[in-house]
Amino acid sequence: MPHRYDVAVRWSDEDRLGHVNNSRYLTFTEDARLSWLADSPAGNGSVILARTEIDFIQPVHFVAGGLLVVLTWVLAVGNSSVRLRQDVVGAPDNTPVTGTGVPAVARTEHVLVRYDYEQQRSRPWADGERTWLRRWIAEVASI
Amino acid sequence: MPHRYDVAVRWSDEDRLGHVNNSRYLTFTEDARLSWLADSPAGNGSVILARTEIDFIQPVHFVAGGLLVVLTWVLAVGNSSVRLRQDVVGAPDNTPVTGTGVPAVARTEHVLVRYDYEQQRSRPWADGERTWLRRWIAEVASI
Amino acid sequence: MPHRYDVAVRWSDEDRLGHVNNSRYLTFTEDARLSWLADSPAGNGSVILARTEIDFIQPVHFVAGGLLVVLTWVLAVGNSSVRLRQDVVGAPDNTPVTGTGVPAVARTEHVLVRYDYEQQRSRPWADGERTWLRRWIAEVASI
Amino acid sequence: MPHRYDVAVRWSDEDRLGHVNNSRYLTFTEDARLSWLADSPAGNGSVILARTEIDFIQPVHFVAGGLLVVLTWVLAVGNSSVRLRQDVVGAPDNTPVTGTGVPAVARTEHVLVRYDYEQQRSRPWADGERTWLRRWIAEVASI
Repeated sequence: MPHRYDVAVRWSDEDRLGHVNNSRYLTFTEDARLSWLADSPAGNGSVILARTEIDFIQPVHFVAGGLLVVLTWVLAVGNSSVRLRQDVVGAPDNTPVTGTGVPAVARTEHVLVRYDYEQQRSRPWADGERTWLRRWIAEVASI
Repeated sequence: MPHRYDVAVRWSDEDRLGHVNNSRYLTFTEDARLSWLADSPAGNGSVILARTEIDFIQPVHFVAGGLLVVLTWVLAVGNSSVRLRQDVVGAPDNTPVTGTGVPAVARTEHVLVRYDYEQQRSRPWADGERTWLRRWIAEVASI
Repeated sequence: MPHRYDVAVRWSDEDRLGHVNNSRYLTFTEDARLSWLADSPAGNGSVILARTEIDFIQPVHFVAGGLLVVLTWVLAVGNSSVRLRQDVVGAPDNTPVTGTGVPAVARTEHVLVRYDYEQQRSRPWADGERTWLRRWIAEVASI
Repeated sequence: MPHRYDVAVRWSDEDRLGHVNNSRYLTFTEDARLSWLADSPAGNGSVILARTEIDFIQPVHFVAGGLLVVLTWVLAVGNSSVRLRQDVVGAPDNTPVTGTGVPAVARTEHVLVRYDYEQQRSRPWADGERTWLRRWIAEVASI
């Protein structure tokens, strides 16, 4: 099961074309990662974002009260990094979704690095952190 | 009773001081107005914002999953305008609030004008719109 | 002479109506204040924003390479506060402007408070700070 | 020679860590593309963003008056698409840069698709558009 994070789209997320601006997908997935990591042994202040890939599938329009959902999976755990898949999904009318059988509006992948801010360099995952991350490894729905 | 709108604070709403940036109070109150007006006879595409006043009471910090609440009252209904009070409130730890007996983080007032986009000028409220607006007139809690 | 700060409008500053979103006026005037205060004896990390008023005069549209200008005057210097006028101006096509004889797109006023972050309370301006602030008092153009 | 676009970093671009938020790299490269395309035969309303990759190299801090620079190259021209490289560069103190011999703070690549909004599908580049795009193909500096 992926981690689920609900996003309230804001009026000011849209640009002149009536599309949620592409930069906001980084905002939505960032907040989803922070929510996900808040429950991890490492905490959500322990990693940095090293790389991001985004495929923009279809534009999203603001609807008052409308929601998007970010689904987060772990693809692979490295020595001091983790590769995530995060899909932004929503029903065509932006109403809440409850599962993965809905169209993705964007598919993203991210490389996070476990970071030691005092030493200012990466450091390996602790065993408990690694175990926690592996719980989120799942076959990604073919969306 | 004021209209209530829940705001999910985003990590990127904060600035270097760890404070939700002051510009975001306009974003939060904007989304609250759109939510409020979505149920009005006029709809939420019918008004423009003419004036805003904000008193910044205390800074707010991002907490994963934390909420702010925007409470909206009508102060006065003019011929083609309406004066609103919107308070942004939250518990000290940003946990959800359920009433008005909580500290305001910002007090705001706004003048909206009923606008005719085709004629590109203001136009008077229709009777049904005026009646709806007056339902939201309330004594503002002394917060 | 007011302080002049040039703003490069961004595509994502606009909303669905093709208008620079109202919250951005707080962003533009904030950056103008930081630029202005960077040269002050107090520095730009020494004050907090206590109150803001904005009159939205006319909408602004994004143009690639287009500029807005923020003009900053001091209206009054208090014991530990200062009241500013900041006008956001621009030519109708957002081309650069060179003076004050141009239409305002927004008129704003702000109350800043000299703040002591260690003591977490306001503190009076030093003499040198007060002298510097008074240099920016000027008759505001009737725009 | 790459296309050069100067970015004025805003105070509110930073997050609590004192880093320009990762989502802003999409904003900076978006505005650079619009500036670049404004001079193209196709114009800057003719393409959509299909895919983005970002490598975050080093964090950037806000400095009043500080600049970043976006450098844009064409990597490859497809039938109805184009692959771009856009590097965000800056001197360590965010002072203006004049060339490419400076550290990248982020390396990005983007796939744009020539889009026909009426037909709602991609369409091949016209000859003049293709010729214009090829002028921007260049060996990317090894930064």
